[in-house]
Amino acid sequence: MGMVGGGNDAFIGQVHRIAAAIDGQIELVCGAFSSTKEKSKLSGKQLYLPDERVYGSYDEMFEKELALPADVRMEFVSIVTPNHLHYPIASKALASGFHVMSDKPATLNLDEILKLREELNKSGLLYGLTHNYTGYPMVKEAKEMVKTGKLGKIRKVVVEYPQGWLSTDLESSGQKQAAWRTDPARSGGCGCMGDIGTHAENLMEYITDLQIESICADLNTFVEGRQLDDDGNVLFKLNNGAKGVLHASQISVGEENGLKIYVYGELAGLFWRQLEPNTLQVMWPDRPTEIVRTGANHTNLSERALYNTRLPAGHPEGFLEAFANIYRNFASTLQAKLQGREPTELELDFPQIEDGVRGMAFIDTLIRSQKCDDKWIKITEY
Amino acid sequence: MGMVGGGNDAFIGQVHRIAAAIDGQIELVCGAFSSTKEKSKLSGKQLYLPDERVYGSYDEMFEKELALPADVRMEFVSIVTPNHLHYPIASKALASGFHVMSDKPATLNLDEILKLREELNKSGLLYGLTHNYTGYPMVKEAKEMVKTGKLGKIRKVVVEYPQGWLSTDLESSGQKQAAWRTDPARSGGCGCMGDIGTHAENLMEYITDLQIESICADLNTFVEGRQLDDDGNVLFKLNNGAKGVLHASQISVGEENGLKIYVYGELAGLFWRQLEPNTLQVMWPDRPTEIVRTGANHTNLSERALYNTRLPAGHPEGFLEAFANIYRNFASTLQAKLQGREPTELELDFPQIEDGVRGMAFIDTLIRSQKCDDKWIKITEY
Amino acid sequence: MGMVGGGNDAFIGQVHRIAAAIDGQIELVCGAFSSTKEKSKLSGKQLYLPDERVYGSYDEMFEKELALPADVRMEFVSIVTPNHLHYPIASKALASGFHVMSDKPATLNLDEILKLREELNKSGLLYGLTHNYTGYPMVKEAKEMVKTGKLGKIRKVVVEYPQGWLSTDLESSGQKQAAWRTDPARSGGCGCMGDIGTHAENLMEYITDLQIESICADLNTFVEGRQLDDDGNVLFKLNNGAKGVLHASQISVGEENGLKIYVYGELAGLFWRQLEPNTLQVMWPDRPTEIVRTGANHTNLSERALYNTRLPAGHPEGFLEAFANIYRNFASTLQAKLQGREPTELELDFPQIEDGVRGMAFIDTLIRSQKCDDKWIKITEY
Amino acid sequence: MGMVGGGNDAFIGQVHRIAAAIDGQIELVCGAFSSTKEKSKLSGKQLYLPDERVYGSYDEMFEKELALPADVRMEFVSIVTPNHLHYPIASKALASGFHVMSDKPATLNLDEILKLREELNKSGLLYGLTHNYTGYPMVKEAKEMVKTGKLGKIRKVVVEYPQGWLSTDLESSGQKQAAWRTDPARSGGCGCMGDIGTHAENLMEYITDLQIESICADLNTFVEGRQLDDDGNVLFKLNNGAKGVLHASQISVGEENGLKIYVYGELAGLFWRQLEPNTLQVMWPDRPTEIVRTGANHTNLSERALYNTRLPAGHPEGFLEAFANIYRNFASTLQAKLQGREPTELELDFPQIEDGVRGMAFIDTLIRSQKCDDKWIKITEY
Repeated sequence: MGMVGGGNDAFIGQVHRIAAAIDGQIELVCGAFSSTKEKSKLSGKQLYLPDERVYGSYDEMFEKELALPADVRMEFVSIVTPNHLHYPIASKALASGFHVMSDKPATLNLDEILKLREELNKSGLLYGLTHNYTGYPMVKEAKEMVKTGKLGKIRKVVVEYPQGWLSTDLESSGQKQAAWRTDPARSGGCGCMGDIGTHAENLMEYITDLQIESICADLNTFVEGRQLDDDGNVLFKLNNGAKGVLHASQISVGEENGLKIYVYGELAGLFWRQLEPNTLQVMWPDRPTEIVRTGANHTNLSERALYNTRLPAGHPEGFLEAFANIYRNFASTLQAKLQGREPTELELDFPQIEDGVRGMAFIDTLIRSQKCDDKWIKITEY
Repeated sequence: MGMVGGGNDAFIGQVHRIAAAIDGQIELVCGAFSSTKEKSKLSGKQLYLPDERVYGSYDEMFEKELALPADVRMEFVSIVTPNHLHYPIASKALASGFHVMSDKPATLNLDEILKLREELNKSGLLYGLTHNYTGYPMVKEAKEMVKTGKLGKIRKVVVEYPQGWLSTDLESSGQKQAAWRTDPARSGGCGCMGDIGTHAENLMEYITDLQIESICADLNTFVEGRQLDDDGNVLFKLNNGAKGVLHASQISVGEENGLKIYVYGELAGLFWRQLEPNTLQVMWPDRPTEIVRTGANHTNLSERALYNTRLPAGHPEGFLEAFANIYRNFASTLQAKLQGREPTELELDFPQIEDGVRGMAFIDTLIRSQKCDDKWIKITEY
Repeated sequence: MGMVGGGNDAFIGQVHRIAAAIDGQIELVCGAFSSTKEKSKLSGKQLYLPDERVYGSYDEMFEKELALPADVRMEFVSIVTPNHLHYPIASKALASGFHVMSDKPATLNLDEILKLREELNKSGLLYGLTHNYTGYPMVKEAKEMVKTGKLGKIRKVVVEYPQGWLSTDLESSGQKQAAWRTDPARSGGCGCMGDIGTHAENLMEYITDLQIESICADLNTFVEGRQLDDDGNVLFKLNNGAKGVLHASQISVGEENGLKIYVYGELAGLFWRQLEPNTLQVMWPDRPTEIVRTGANHTNLSERALYNTRLPAGHPEGFLEAFANIYRNFASTLQAKLQGREPTELELDFPQIEDGVRGMAFIDTLIRSQKCDDKWIKITEY
Repeated sequence: MGMVGGGNDAFIGQVHRIAAAIDGQIELVCGAFSSTKEKSKLSGKQLYLPDERVYGSYDEMFEKELALPADVRMEFVSIVTPNHLHYPIASKALASGFHVMSDKPATLNLDEILKLREELNKSGLLYGLTHNYTGYPMVKEAKEMVKTGKLGKIRKVVVEYPQGWLSTDLESSGQKQAAWRTDPARSGGCGCMGDIGTHAENLMEYITDLQIESICADLNTFVEGRQLDDDGNVLFKLNNGAKGVLHASQISVGEENGLKIYVYGELAGLFWRQLEPNTLQVMWPDRPTEIVRTGANHTNLSERALYNTRLPAGHPEGFLEAFANIYRNFASTLQAKLQGREPTELELDFPQIEDGVRGMAFIDTLIRSQKCDDKWIKITEY
């Protein structure tokens, strides 16, 4: 694996590196970590990379890696830059024959992701997208419960993603994470909704296997001078007739990273929250709520959950392990491809280009809904 | 106190009686408990009432009680019937010179509450409405925190009220509670939103001291054949510019009575949920979340919270005690009136006619919004 | 009901009065509330009692009530004084032909309770003891689960009762509750263990239907100058071979009233805590933990739990309702006696003289163990 | 790093490998993974190790690695075998000049650890012990709060470690983990107390910086035919006069891995539990309980906590990250040694030989206490 972005300052680069390293299946072999060669070299040194494989730009990286023998050069690139660079890097990587693992959102807007999808399809290469919250074992279990009909027909979904870190004008203080995330040129047409609203949307569609059909959005900017939304409340209809609410916020002061989801079917309901990720609450109409728990030794769990579990019950798996599941499944699928065999359903269980397309269509529709006085807006076609 | 409704089958009648009895300030002296004299007499007997003060109708009760000496007859009537009877009984009570404590919603529709408000104002009598969830000590504390500016300007409110008991066609099984609540003639223009959505609305406006200005509603009926909504999702704007989400449901299978509220200001946020009512979570941007707890010995609590607390910390106060606070404050205010003194702010702290008006205007607006394709609908004037 | 003790200052008097009043089955008709007639009269007035039935002493009360016609005089006395008065008042009440409901611990020491038991047996009267924590619906459910074998043979029990309110020398500040509880003359041979350790012991024996056979105790006094224990840790053996730990403390700073219990059998385990009393956690070896919840509409609950439940699920029942269950069942049993019928098992389900004897034997053994260097001490015979 | 033990079947080997890999500072270069060369080779292959560095025994490994050039050979050995092999391998490693990271308990008994300490001191090499629960950020924070006096003088500690996985005769089913853990020859003189009781003891002494002085133990074997304790309850005195309770169990059916600790000082109390490891509850006498949370961006945390934190708040860190902190700090200390500089206090913050000695003395004392009828037994000198 080679990496673009993720230099010293960027917390997310280190997350990707740890996630890739955990299972011992992926090795970081090169990188273009920063916008200057000097900074990039420094990062590379701290990562024990040989100096000659630390590059000043992704263009240079793709070119020089291609020149290396096939068994030496990187097999895929991990893109961990601000959003506006996702598309150009992914596009160039595919053109150069490298598989791609990209941070989310996939691109800056819907146009870019549609172009990328086309390029990807032509290339025959593999594309992964780190909608990491779907990597948690209990999210897998939730998906499987819906899939096997335990909840019956889904009627209502509520998905919430409160954060509080942008409740003040942090971007003016020089904080880099805040700066690019609130800048339309680097972040895209949405702020909060692009950054975390898409995670909520992806989680909901992943668990329910349903798709948003129409939405009614109210996006807000509470911090004066901010150019993008820092809060949003959305009503939605799903393609089976279910209804729901999605709200996300970065001004919900005091909230850390409170992604949570409630799914109610005709037969049962479930609740999961990221802050206590190893618990899945299953609610029944006529018997006690059950506390389903992550655990490699829990024989009552689905194969899908167990496949993504590393530890016995009571040994908390965290954010990094969930993130690692995305990388591990991507790597297994890649290996299957290289070995010429069909990847299994569980190997293929990681977010891919269609998740990216859905996410960008969601954002595109949010923006249209926000500008419009009609209650319901159909999701943009793609 | 005399009671109309609340016979053997009705859980809510017993709730009102216990709530009134807890503090030893209110005595049940008469009642018209059921639709037939026979049933009413039976209830009266079980309540140790003298036979001659158990009546066959509220008309009879008002007439005969009026004929009793002033120090013997009931002072106020408690109305615990299905919704469609709230107005006629309250109206007649006021006309007969009796103060009124009514179960919510105050009336069947906005017209009725406006008439009732007029009648009440003319009468100079006292009117209370059992929006009981505002009776919890930690709700009082939340209100006081907002009022004293600890949260700063309010930006966002999320209020949720999931229940699951109507996730099947219970009304067809002969269950009385389900039957009248899903019948427009007895329940009013909304089902779920009238029954519990108004509690959510009232709780939110009580804590924040803000008012809903516009709404965007999506009401749903998931159970086939049901005539009223059993679920609803609402976006709203408050009169200070804050935004929010209110959703309530009676088809959220497995949920008991999950009223909860999040309020986020510029300086701090708070979270309260009815299932753990003695805890108020206060979230700060830069220091640990605090777990504020009910307790008569907790000197850090506001006078408003302490005034409505009966027990030392760690002795859980429940639904009945919160309900009793409504009755106790109503009774104290009544006593003040009788004693010719001005009731204090804390005595006056119980839901009154304006809460009823707000609630019916909310429902009226929901119905208009539901029928309309515009996103935002201003709340009905009243 | 007449009351001895429970004047204005005493929180526990008001608790008993509310608990007795809630179900409308018991009426407070007289009292000797304080050590002076004047104070007693004042309390009586606030309770709307006729002046002539407010007495200056329990002797006076018993005498004068006896002189009243049988259908007017009180039927039983509720004793809510400091511990050292429990025995003399109960003894005198029985001698005067009144049934007794006593606050706990039953007496100052084992001698007294053994005398009281003898007097009670001779009298043929009814005796209740407010080990109120056994009144919670989910404690009832726990008992029933053990009784019906769902846990299999019990192996281990852990019962904890941390409080923090005596972590400083509060008794020197003039706080009355602290003053008598830390005074051997009024509280008995144990402080913390008498006050709350006996609740823990009673709860444990109630749920498991097992008895402590031997103990190993380490009682401590952490606050300088205090005469009684303010903390204690106890190992114990039960009469079926099970083992356990009981610890209680009043110096566990920041703890409110944290009674909790874990019971582990061969087949399942359970956990209950008083601060969230409507939840009973049931743990299985091979399937998800279940969250059993209070609720009059929960058909999966035992008759014992439902009999002691007033509200539908999701309407939290609190400390007062649990306390009221002790009074209600006592009153029902009394009524059965008066009606000449055999009380049912559920009516008889309230703490009685044997609970008091067990409690005093427990304290007696703690004191012996504390003074002794042997590890295991058999519980005192009685 | 080279590894002894930790072949395919052993969950703990994979834990050590991931923990070592997470921070990119430690590379697995060789191993003797299993008791047969064949199995070892298989494991090595799956770990992408060159065949020539996968050995059939630790003797072979030490010998052949020594023969390699200094910049190629492993620097330290990670020992992840059953307990009886810890000492011989560690001893041989030290004799061969390799640093040691050992799974706990350090040795089979006190004699061995005393010999090992002597050998270690002579060698001048580094020794680490994976009492991994002290690696959690909130445990670090707890330690720091005690250290800086926020709790005042410690008075009482309660530490609990319930598990349920050995509530049946699992060892007879062929389950390997259960088999060696219940076999005195491989596990040592204690079962449950050696396996998890020592974790509880270590956690308690780590956080409080106090030492157990005397104990009173009740060890139990509930499963018939089992040779070692599967449950134990212990009273203890600490060297500052504080008192406490420690209990651990592997027959607490339904419990996963429930390590938790309560520490009460004169000024404040704290609570931490491993199942929700990113929360530290701090309890005050006169203000709300605080929920201290892990988070690299939480400026209110101590340097010790932040040093061991990888992610911003709300991104749950789990068991593996805590485990990795032990390895990371060990590696940093080793690097400091190699660079000839003094390691910092934070680098040195990992369990070392004295933790092992304390643990083995604790077990030795438990065994003596269990055989003895005296209440208090002084901890074995060492």
